[in-house]
Formats: sequence, C-alpha cells, structure tokens
Amino acid sequence: MATLGLIEYADATAEVRAVYDDIMAVRQTDWINNFWKALASHPPTLRRTWESVKEIMAPGALDALTKELVYLAVSASNQCPYCIASHTASARKAGMSDAMFAELMAVVGMANETKRLSSGHRVEIDERFR
Amino acid sequence: MATLGLIEYADATAEVRAVYDDIMAVRQTDWINNFWKALASHPPTLRRTWESVKEIMAPGALDALTKELVYLAVSASNQCPYCIASHTASARKAGMSDAMFAELMAVVGMANETKRLSSGHRVEIDERFR
Amino acid sequence: MATLGLIEYADATAEVRAVYDDIMAVRQTDWINNFWKALASHPPTLRRTWESVKEIMAPGALDALTKELVYLAVSASNQCPYCIASHTASARKAGMSDAMFAELMAVVGMANETKRLSSGHRVEIDERFR
Amino acid sequence: MATLGLIEYADATAEVRAVYDDIMAVRQTDWINNFWKALASHPPTLRRTWESVKEIMAPGALDALTKELVYLAVSASNQCPYCIASHTASARKAGMSDAMFAELMAVVGMANETKRLSSGHRVEIDERFR
Amino acid sequence: MATLGLIEYADATAEVRAVYDDIMAVRQTDWINNFWKALASHPPTLRRTWESVKEIMAPGALDALTKELVYLAVSASNQCPYCIASHTASARKAGMSDAMFAELMAVVGMANETKRLSSGHRVEIDERFR
Amino acid sequence: MATLGLIEYADATAEVRAVYDDIMAVRQTDWINNFWKALASHPPTLRRTWESVKEIMAPGALDALTKELVYLAVSASNQCPYCIASHTASARKAGMSDAMFAELMAVVGMANETKRLSSGHRVEIDERFR
Repeated sequence: MATLGLIEYADATAEVRAVYDDIMAVRQTDWINNFWKALASHPPTLRRTWESVKEIMAPGALDALTKELVYLAVSASNQCPYCIASHTASARKAGMSDAMFAELMAVVGMANETKRLSSGHRVEIDERFR
Repeated sequence: MATLGLIEYADATAEVRAVYDDIMAVRQTDWINNFWKALASHPPTLRRTWESVKEIMAPGALDALTKELVYLAVSASNQCPYCIASHTASARKAGMSDAMFAELMAVVGMANETKRLSSGHRVEIDERFR
Repeated sequence: MATLGLIEYADATAEVRAVYDDIMAVRQTDWINNFWKALASHPPTLRRTWESVKEIMAPGALDALTKELVYLAVSASNQCPYCIASHTASARKAGMSDAMFAELMAVVGMANETKRLSSGHRVEIDERFR
Repeated sequence: MATLGLIEYADATAEVRAVYDDIMAVRQTDWINNFWKALASHPPTLRRTWESVKEIMAPGALDALTKELVYLAVSASNQCPYCIASHTASARKAGMSDAMFAELMAVVGMANETKRLSSGHRVEIDERFR
Repeated sequence: MATLGLIEYADATAEVRAVYDDIMAVRQTDWINNFWKALASHPPTLRRTWESVKEIMAPGALDALTKELVYLAVSASNQCPYCIASHTASARKAGMSDAMFAELMAVVGMANETKRLSSGHRVEIDERFR
Repeated sequence: MATLGLIEYADATAEVRAVYDDIMAVRQTDWINNFWKALASHPPTLRRTWESVKEIMAPGALDALTKELVYLAVSASNQCPYCIASHTASARKAGMSDAMFAELMAVVGMANETKRLSSGHRVEIDERFR
C-alpha cells in the first residue's frame, strides 16, 4: 500500500543494500522495517534519513533510552500510528518498562492539556522566562 | 492581556492562595508564574490542573529530569511559546545542560520529519510492531 | 507586516467595498478587522471566505453562541493567536460569560490530553463505536 | 493491540473496579469502553483522568450537550480517530442531531481554513482584540 | 462507517446530483469519491465545499499540478489518511511522477523538522524578514 | 532570546564558519539568518541540518520555485512564524508573485478545511485510492 512500494533486500541495489546493512549492524538486528523499505524507492532520501537518525539517536549528552522515550513521546503527541508502533518497540528494546511507558504517556497528555490552557487563556510569557 | 486577567497573591482568595502556597512549596521557589495566575480566575481549573501536574511530574519510574525533558520536547514539537519558555527554565533547573537541550531538539526535529515521511509514503505498520 | 499589506476601506475597489459593507451589515459593526483587510489583496479569496463564513456561522441547528464557542475552542486547540483573539471577542459579543470561557478552555484542554492518551496507548476503537 | 493491554472488569483490582463502577454510574451505562480499559494498566492515570473528565464534563455554565459538541469539535480538528468515534457516540446520546453534527463539522472545517489564512498572510492582531 | 452515511448517485436528490454531475464534468471522470458522498448528507456543505475547491484548484497564477502538489504536501504534513490517499491519486493524474512525489515528501519532512528546531530554540525573526 | 544564543560570524569557530560560507555561497547572499546562528551552538546539528536542506532544496524532479512554494505552504499550514517569515522571503526570491502567494494560501486553507471534514465525518478511503 506504500505509495512507491516496498523494496526488499533481495531486490535492492547495492546502494540500498549498503544502507540496509548499516541499519542492521547499528541496531543489532536482522531485519528491516517497512519505513526504510518505503524510503528505498528514493535512495538519496533513504541514505540521508538514515545518516541523520543514526547520528541523532547515538548516545551523547542524552543516553539512548532517554532519546527513545523522547522520540516516542513526540510520536504519541503527534498521533503518528507508524511512529508510535515502531518507537514503542525500540524504546522497549532500549529498556523502557511498562511503568515508564505509562508515566511517559501521562506527561505527554498533560503537556498537551496545559499548552491549550496557556494558549486559550492568552497567557503572556513571564519576564523571567524571556 | 490574559483573557480573564492575572490574579496576584495579594488579591487571591484563600482557596487560590492555598494552591499558590503548595506550588511554591513543591517547586521550592518564591514566585508564581503567569500560567497559574491566569488559571486562578477559575479556581476549579487551577486546583485540578495543579494537582494533576504535581502528581504527573513527581519522580516515579521516570526521574524528574527525564520528565522535564519530555515535557519540553512535546512543547517544542507543539510550538507552544509559553510552554517552551517555562519548561526550558524548569528543565534547566532540573539539570538540563546546553548539550542536552541541543540533542533534545535534534530528536524532536527528527521525529517530526520521519513522521511525515511515514505518513506521506503511506507506510504500513509492520506485523512485528502490531 | 501582513505579507500583501492591509487594504483600508478608503483605498478599496468597489468589489472589495461591497464585501466590507456586507461584513459590517451582517455583524452590526462599523469597522473591519485586519483578517479581511489582508485577504482583500486577493478579492476572490476575500469574497469566497466571507461568503463561507457568513453561511456557516448563521444560526441553524446550532445557535450563534454555540457556533462561536466551537470556533473559539478549535482556535485555542490549534493555538492560532489571531483566531483566539478575534473569536474571544466575537464569542463575548454573542453572549459568552467568563465562566463559560473558563469551562470551554477546560474542555479543550481535556480533549487534547485524552487524545494523546488514546493514541499513545494505541487504544482500538470499540465495536460499538464503529 | 493496546500497548499495555485492556483490563476487563472481571480481571480488575478493587481500585480499578471502583473507577469502572463510578464511570458506569455517572454515565448511566452498563459497559466500559476501551479507553478506560487501556488506562487501567496504570491505576493513578485511570483515576486522575476519570476524575478530571467527570468534573470538566459536568453541566455548569455550559450544558452537557454544548460540552460534548466542543469535545467532538476538538477531536475532529485534531483528527483523533478514537476520540471522534467515542465522542460522536456520546454527543448523540446527549442530544446531537444529524443536522447539528453537520453544522458542527462545517464550523470546525472553516476554523481550520481561516487559521491558515491568518497565519500564512501574517495578519497582525487588531488593537481592539488585544 | 461515515457518521451520516454515504449518498449514492441513484439515491441522491436533484440538488445533490447537480453537484455530483459538476464534479464529474470538471474532473473528467465518471465516479464520485466517498468524501463527496459523505458531505452529501448536508447539501449546503456539499455545494459550498465543492464550489470552493473548484475555484481554488482551477489553474491561475499557479498551474494545476503545482496546486495538487501543494495540496498533497499539506495533507502529508497534516497526516490526513483520506486526503493523502485521494490527493496522491489526483496529483498523479495531474502529472506527478514517482521522483516528484519522493522529492515532495522530502521537502515536507524537512519543513517539519526545521520548524521544531526554530520554535524549540526560540529563534527570533530577523529584522529583514519582518 | 534564542535559548542558546546566536553565534555571529566574527565569533564563530572554523567549523561553523565553513557552514556559514557554504550557506552564503549556495544562496548567493552575504548574510546569515538567525536560524543558522541559533543552530551554530551545536555544530553537528548546524552541519547536518544545512547539508540536508541543501540537498533537499536543490532543483531535481521539482524546480526550485516549486520546492519553495511547498516549504512555505507547509510552514503556513503548521503556523510556524519564523518559517513563514523566512520562507516567504526565499519564495519571493525564487520568483513567487503576489498572486501566486495568494493562491498558495487559498490551497493551504482549503486543504486544512477538507481534512477536518473527511476526518470528522469518518470518511472511509475509497477502494480505488488504496
């Protein structure tokens, strides 16, 4: 159903396979999820997106689990079904427990409620926050 | 400019002052930011919102800093100026460094990019993620 | 600051003035707000938008106040500063009290919280709701 | 498919059953929809969310039907499939007719169109609206 | 599953058939998609929406393909499954190639990433852009 | 006011200057806008974002003007003030006329209206569009 179809490893060009191989190596897994197979129809987008994701999600000032939690929080806030499904899986793999998930969703829900209260009430930004 | 105005401590009823006092005690601070002063025009909303925020943001399976980072990430993703300003301040207070902030924004940006790529390409959710 | 500028009544063509006159007549007011002055740079958009707004906001199965409350609720949910400002004014004119406004914002806030909880938790739609 | 599963009444703890019982009593119904069954995996979120919804949706300055219409309008604006499905059902139960629904969607659609026109054209907020 | 059902041509009133006939004539097609069949339950909305779409999507300063690309880009950015599906079809009909589609999605993805970076970092608008 | 401040060329490291120089060369301009100065506080984000923007916005299957129009359309749809301001400027530079801008905003507005109509009415995707 993906607009440009899904490219399986067996049908991929060397350029696409190189990206797939790197994804599997970095993620220590032996399969490729549909997101990448869909982007593979346009190799420059596949390569650029993967390079960016790899760089951004690598542990740095924030550890890998925190980054996965943030990614999942933004996906839930955005209501992106694919992203929620795939990042729930990757956050669990990075160590997210059921309790962490439930608390994460509570924070996401609250942040979305208070943002409407502040916008709707037209609250001015405090001098100290500027 | 807030639609229903801002209620200062000096002008507040005992019911509102009790919430203000609790906010200052829990946050170990001596001032109240405009968000709460705006909600104070409707005491049930002030009380309920504060009780929810207090419960949700207390450390649990996720620590206080992680919760603040997630709150800020959702605010930035939602483009809520008041929320970004106030939660940048509270995340810093909870220990967010400049490097953590910059990485946080990078994850938020990426999550918003990939969500459009997956939606736009109409990527089906993988069987393993269901 | 509007990208195509604002067209004042005195500078408007007959086509634009006819729309301005109708807006003032329908709204029983003697001024035109900036939104229409900005659209006036492209008369087909001015005319079409006004005709649609006039038709949609006229009392029907829903009365005028309910429609204004819904418009304001959607504006607050969307965080559109111009829309919140202008529709707070028009809802007040249609009879919205301070208490109605505060309750309206509470509903908007809650609807935005529960939507993230249902999406984030990936809740399936109940058979009865289909 | 819900991430943490659905808790049926028969399998629920006393704490969860107490919330379920209250939901059924307040709503004058004999079943629990999936949203609550999903939140039940994290009892504090279940309890807090229900207490907030119960308080916010009770008739006050706005009647129950108006609140349901606003909730549905925000859900449609947000494109939350679960929320649209469940709140279409509850708004109908509160008295929403087909004609009211159709007019409600027309207002929601228009509010979303004009918000982009005002943002895109960078319309400044009128002095009178500040 | 559409809330008010779908009105087929055979069951439509003369008023609705007139709109259906115009849609098929303008689009040079012999069928009506579900969107219009759902709106047909409320003929004023059907008529007004079609008249607006017809006027807006007609070639003008922007050609028909560019308008379709923009419509699809906004739909993908908004994550509206129905809109993405229908406008992918209409953009293809207007001449969109696979490569154009892939580049379009890349622009949409990037625009959504940079918007969060600018909002999250609280970048002030440059004097030259005001 | 940018959270991490703005890095001026004179104060920039060689790594940052190299990106600034490339931005000015590719865009044939002699200044750097605040967006890049804000990202410069985190050089990896500055570099990666610029490399992505440069690659994505280069003419390909879509010409430069079409890409700028799409970027501006998404920015207006998203209501990102910084993005609207900067991409209005860059689209004009790429050849966007006032009439093109007005038509572009009309398409963006309409796409946002119809998406709520299709979601709110719960319109099923036609078999032909799958």
